[in-house]
Amino acid sequence: MNGAESLVQTLLASGVRVCFANPGTSEMHFVAALDGHPEMRCILCLFEGGVSGAADGYYRMTEEVAATILHLAPGFGNAFANLHNARKAQSGVLNIMGDHADYHLRFEAPLKGDTLGVAQAVSHWTRISASAGKVAGDAAEAVQAARAKGGQIATLILPANTAWEKASGHAVAAPAPVPQRPSQAEVAAAAKALRQPGAILMIDGPALWSDLGLLARRLTKACGARLMQPYFVSRFRRGAGAVKIERMAYRIEDNLRLLAGAPSLVLCGTARPAGFFAYPGLPSTPDDPDTRLVELCAREMDIAWTLQALAEELGEAKLTPDDFVQPDRPALPEGPVTMAKVGEAIAALMPEDVVIVDEGITASAHVAPGLQRGPGHDVLTITGGSIGFGLPNAVGAAVACPNRKVVVLEGDGSGMYTLQSLWTMARERLDVTTVVFANRGYQILREEMAAMGVNAVGRNAQRMFDVEGPSLDWVALARGHGVEARRIADMAGFNAAFAEAMAQPGPRLETGRQVLRLIRGAPPTAIRQPGSAPCCRAASPGCRGNSGGASP
Amino acid sequence: MNGAESLVQTLLASGVRVCFANPGTSEMHFVAALDGHPEMRCILCLFEGGVSGAADGYYRMTEEVAATILHLAPGFGNAFANLHNARKAQSGVLNIMGDHADYHLRFEAPLKGDTLGVAQAVSHWTRISASAGKVAGDAAEAVQAARAKGGQIATLILPANTAWEKASGHAVAAPAPVPQRPSQAEVAAAAKALRQPGAILMIDGPALWSDLGLLARRLTKACGARLMQPYFVSRFRRGAGAVKIERMAYRIEDNLRLLAGAPSLVLCGTARPAGFFAYPGLPSTPDDPDTRLVELCAREMDIAWTLQALAEELGEAKLTPDDFVQPDRPALPEGPVTMAKVGEAIAALMPEDVVIVDEGITASAHVAPGLQRGPGHDVLTITGGSIGFGLPNAVGAAVACPNRKVVVLEGDGSGMYTLQSLWTMARERLDVTTVVFANRGYQILREEMAAMGVNAVGRNAQRMFDVEGPSLDWVALARGHGVEARRIADMAGFNAAFAEAMAQPGPRLETGRQVLRLIRGAPPTAIRQPGSAPCCRAASPGCRGNSGGASP
Repeated sequence: MNGAESLVQTLLASGVRVCFANPGTSEMHFVAALDGHPEMRCILCLFEGGVSGAADGYYRMTEEVAATILHLAPGFGNAFANLHNARKAQSGVLNIMGDHADYHLRFEAPLKGDTLGVAQAVSHWTRISASAGKVAGDAAEAVQAARAKGGQIATLILPANTAWEKASGHAVAAPAPVPQRPSQAEVAAAAKALRQPGAILMIDGPALWSDLGLLARRLTKACGARLMQPYFVSRFRRGAGAVKIERMAYRIEDNLRLLAGAPSLVLCGTARPAGFFAYPGLPSTPDDPDTRLVELCAREMDIAWTLQALAEELGEAKLTPDDFVQPDRPALPEGPVTMAKVGEAIAALMPEDVVIVDEGITASAHVAPGLQRGPGHDVLTITGGSIGFGLPNAVGAAVACPNRKVVVLEGDGSGMYTLQSLWTMARERLDVTTVVFANRGYQILREEMAAMGVNAVGRNAQRMFDVEGPSLDWVALARGHGVEARRIADMAGFNAAFAEAMAQPGPRLETGRQVLRLIRGAPPTAIRQPGSAPCCRAASPGCRGNSGGASP
Repeated sequence: MNGAESLVQTLLASGVRVCFANPGTSEMHFVAALDGHPEMRCILCLFEGGVSGAADGYYRMTEEVAATILHLAPGFGNAFANLHNARKAQSGVLNIMGDHADYHLRFEAPLKGDTLGVAQAVSHWTRISASAGKVAGDAAEAVQAARAKGGQIATLILPANTAWEKASGHAVAAPAPVPQRPSQAEVAAAAKALRQPGAILMIDGPALWSDLGLLARRLTKACGARLMQPYFVSRFRRGAGAVKIERMAYRIEDNLRLLAGAPSLVLCGTARPAGFFAYPGLPSTPDDPDTRLVELCAREMDIAWTLQALAEELGEAKLTPDDFVQPDRPALPEGPVTMAKVGEAIAALMPEDVVIVDEGITASAHVAPGLQRGPGHDVLTITGGSIGFGLPNAVGAAVACPNRKVVVLEGDGSGMYTLQSLWTMARERLDVTTVVFANRGYQILREEMAAMGVNAVGRNAQRMFDVEGPSLDWVALARGHGVEARRIADMAGFNAAFAEAMAQPGPRLETGRQVLRLIRGAPPTAIRQPGSAPCCRAASPGCRGNSGGASP
């Protein structure tokens, strides 16, 4: 057995079943070792940003770590942005990065680079395997690290000779260490703070998609506190049947209003809220200076235990239908296309339990009110703010949940960052429907420029915001990647196209001048790869989401 | 004046005239400052890898530093791979990376990341400006650093508040320090080594495209040494009129043969040759163990002075037509498409002084013999081995040289990494003709797998090498970006399309099953932006290349 074989056996023995890959020469022996193991599902992405984003989306929907295969330093650089987003989502990702054979590193080969430096700039855990015999043990530790603290970025660097030299066997990852918990005294103090009228409990992590959300609602109902969540989170439940949780806004001014006057703000699974950027004349944080901040439980700590401990202090009120979003499907809107109507149309047409990957950027705020009225669904958001997250995350979510519809809300500026993911959707026959909001530019920058206090926009600035002259033709771009697409002219067209996309097999479509396009991945067929990942772990509350609301 | 304005004034006063950009919110004040300065040409790329690759290509053709505008940590990550290629090309690039306002960095904003860590992993020089008042001085030092040692990667990180707070004025970059020179004793020893029969002088850098190549040829002719160059270089002159210089090969086996038996190998402007990768059973370096290695002048040292000093030791022989590649235009090939015929067809049809950006990867070796017979042209190669270099470099080369034709030889796997650059070609009306060799996969990986000693390829590996199911439709991809394209069925079709592309205004085209496609950028028109960069510096030997061969 060589090091590469010991690596693959270790990953499989440790429960890693999916590998998103864009390998190069330094990873060839690893690729060869995968050949003997069809139970590992290997998915090719045509750019490393697609690899890392897919692993992020896969973790968000399964709480299972996927492996990535990345080429040495610059290949990891290409994956960097979506690893940043994954890190902010607290997703567990295991990166396998090749490097030159260790004895080759003293020469100036073209691809020699600072593998360790670029890896450490975004990873929680990084190691270079010292020999083929160490690969199995290192890989097992890497899997454990990726699962620790609610999910981490772990990067294992394998010099090429550690792959082809002799190894003795595989290893198995130890269970992730028990996460840290707050003290009973801290819980008691937080409970006391929550009893003050107008107090807020802010939650994140599994509390936003699992039954922990029910628990959080019961305990805040018992003490009368408000229950809130940040704006950008790895995943949350929305629509009919979802537990009511107030969502923070994007703009710091709105968040200042939302948090004004609260006597205390207790954080469980989240850090102190901060503005997306600093703006001249505005504070960095939206919490009221008079609010007492209680940092009870960080995201990497034991959120489930902490909420249970809080409930033991505060009691649990019985939930009633009022604690859940009630079914309120909008009627199908007609006439010219608007973003608000698109939200309503999607809500009117989508089935239960869709996964919505939201990279609509400025469009998202306009479509959200409509979507909120639709059937219950999960939403994945751009946690790290680095655009190019949407299409790759949708790949990962669709691989994780082959029985659920995945809908991507995508901006045209952000979609261009990682459009290669469309090809992977087509190749893997993933059931992904993409709606591209084509406002022909970086609308967010137009708005941020004004927020920064710059109101006069001249030619040089204008040309940095507009994606025009030429306009991007998303129908052609999608077809070039093997995905059919359609342009939408009015809401009747959108409704017909989206309804068709929701039925199997569906079409692919888009709008013309009306800032909206819609693309649909190739329909799923009977062709499934051996070793295809199941929807989600049998015992996981993850994939079906918090649907407890249907029968409180 | 705020810090952003002082930055722009400093860049302009220091001779920086072109800025490739993909800005985000943290760079908004910089973008605003650019509005007042139309003499700075700002070029938007839809992905940061396009930004850094364009700055690289611009430097290769002008020896002038362009600025990049990159968004904080993950945005820089997207630029990383082409900065790696630029670093290996010894290109000077000045990165301006925004960051959060310094007082905002203590909070967990989504985009907060390790800006310094990711920058340092690829930059020679990195600094975070401490205040608005320091921005001008820091920027001047950054420009100087980017121009030092024959070209470096310099990254200046500007916290957002340093852009909007008050500054006092601009600064001007000091001239780059005089590069290091070898001692006279070292020159004498190298000269002695070169006098041994069969000795080799290996050169790189400006010696491959400027009149220094003539000098190198004269002095090696005087002492009877062989004159050679590495395979991957930032730029070299090829075709009729070029000084004859033996080119190293890609494969280590071929290079072992090329260097076998040489008594000495003198390096001037280059490091010891090394294999692209290490391979089991093969050495890391191709030089003969009995060859005396003389590391006379590193790439970052004074190559011009060193060659002159060598010539003073060895004398200079008069050059004759035999020292130059003689005109030998191939006839137009007919019949089915082959890569060799494509090389001949391009050579038959291209005008003088084309810039060829070569990212044909496995195709390049097949087209090179034909191209070698064409008129004199410059070639830019993938110095760092990180794919996705071709289309962005072509953008930079075309901006640098608006009066020259730029032809990109592109693989389909590598082209997909940074295909967004097609849009910038269309928007800036750059005269770029792209030939895509569509072999529907990573052919290089198929070959490297065998070179690694792995000959059995199973399903998991096969699916990592093939870009099929679906096939990419490059005509659609190009049109989606606003670039017309054509599919080529046979050589008659290629000839017609390429001839049309070489004439103004040209078409865009490509092949079907015959592993070849050709795309042409929008034709240049009278629309030119104010402050458009000149072709190249008046006094620079750069842009016209080493055409001294015409009249030796």
